[in-house]
Amino acid sequence: MTRVVACQLAPVIGDLAANAELSSAAVRAAVDDGADVIVLPELVTSGYVFASPEEARTLAIRPDHGVLGSWAAACTARGGAQSPVVIGGFCELGDDGLLYNSAAVVDASGVRAVYRKAHLWDREKLVFTPGSAAPPVVETAHGRIAVMVCYDLEFPEWTRTAALADADLIAVPTNWPLVARPDGERAPEVVIAMAAARVNHVAIACADRTGTERGVDWNEGTSIVSADGWVVSAVGAGTGVAQADLDLTASRDKRLTEHAHLMDDRRTELYGAVAPTV
Amino acid sequence: MTRVVACQLAPVIGDLAANAELSSAAVRAAVDDGADVIVLPELVTSGYVFASPEEARTLAIRPDHGVLGSWAAACTARGGAQSPVVIGGFCELGDDGLLYNSAAVVDASGVRAVYRKAHLWDREKLVFTPGSAAPPVVETAHGRIAVMVCYDLEFPEWTRTAALADADLIAVPTNWPLVARPDGERAPEVVIAMAAARVNHVAIACADRTGTERGVDWNEGTSIVSADGWVVSAVGAGTGVAQADLDLTASRDKRLTEHAHLMDDRRTELYGAVAPTV
Repeated sequence: MTRVVACQLAPVIGDLAANAELSSAAVRAAVDDGADVIVLPELVTSGYVFASPEEARTLAIRPDHGVLGSWAAACTARGGAQSPVVIGGFCELGDDGLLYNSAAVVDASGVRAVYRKAHLWDREKLVFTPGSAAPPVVETAHGRIAVMVCYDLEFPEWTRTAALADADLIAVPTNWPLVARPDGERAPEVVIAMAAARVNHVAIACADRTGTERGVDWNEGTSIVSADGWVVSAVGAGTGVAQADLDLTASRDKRLTEHAHLMDDRRTELYGAVAPTV
Repeated sequence: MTRVVACQLAPVIGDLAANAELSSAAVRAAVDDGADVIVLPELVTSGYVFASPEEARTLAIRPDHGVLGSWAAACTARGGAQSPVVIGGFCELGDDGLLYNSAAVVDASGVRAVYRKAHLWDREKLVFTPGSAAPPVVETAHGRIAVMVCYDLEFPEWTRTAALADADLIAVPTNWPLVARPDGERAPEVVIAMAAARVNHVAIACADRTGTERGVDWNEGTSIVSADGWVVSAVGAGTGVAQADLDLTASRDKRLTEHAHLMDDRRTELYGAVAPTV
């Protein structure tokens, strides 16, 4: 079993040092609780509601920055081949001088992969350059972990892409701004995660924000969804963690019945293979 | 506003005459209640749990059969340009001699379109030939109505295809065999419908079965989902109707914010356009 933990945190806009401590403390606590995979929110290093592209630039870091190093250090309590794996969002300064809304996969050995958000939400387009690579699927001791960020999840083409690349778990650092929903309903993005899990038979772990930031509130939708599409743990309001012990190898079986198979039953000759180009 | 009604019925396996009466009575009742769009279950003319392909063949009809004519006749109480529109499933005998799991779009003028299920579920593959045409989108006085059948809905490529073809409403005749779900959860297919509605901003109306048939029970998931992805009416257990008055033109606005647009934000250069070939 793989212990998956998704952390709902309240980073401080503009304070790299405070967010490094906040996020690495969350990783340390999860590692102490036996976590194998730890998901942190989108842009947890910087905060989200930038006043300007210039402000974002002052908070942008490269993957070799000490903030991500602090996550790796927090994993060393159980280092080596079985190291916990952290997936967290950061404001990336690319070698090309552009800014990306990125997420890193980090373990005790350091940064394993960086993903740049491909589907930018709303005013993010005024700050970031969209990524143009598919979600990485990182082989770890705890399973094959894919990464995407927030609004990416709302494009079924992208979750399909990750599933077809043999992801066991899709880790989703996110900042879901508060939207209206009927009483008793989950955040709409969680419903989308449930459906994406179910139609692809892949587990999904989403780590959302909490804490009002420059007038913006959040859905506080941090949830772990099983490959059958059910929410097995969720945080609700405030800071906290969703935690579940999952058999991630279950995601590898796409067969539903003797004659039904989620992937083989696609009619790719009618609508393309999805993701043939990345 | 368009009054959408989805009928949860219990057809009788093998009894074309009884099912013609059952389904046309449901249409008449809905028309009397002011329905503009009426969705009936999958294979409502024949029942679902065929003992053999040979049995299915004895129940297969052509679109000009009197059963579909009985739906058209039931619409004539409010005929003419404003005729109600019926979408219902039937076991089709093709001109090629093959059997199809089809759905017809019918109004007072007769059959407007026939769709053949493209994604066959489980043992349906032993009976039917899959269709190879995209969901039709029928222009009606009540909106642009697309049609797909049951398991089709679980392929995001297919709902995307219908949305990209400018559907205002996706009508889904379905027979959802009973599957396990946690207490308090909706049927998983309804969750999938909610997500498909939300990510495409398109309304979806699903008409499911009730009534044990040859040992098979059903999810009884008949639901109407708004373009925002919320269930606005559902039947629950037993025979009944889901009904909602929807502004279907809302489905035409894919813009979420000044800088976010559900369709324009797709990164088709990364994963293909979806449905370029139909």
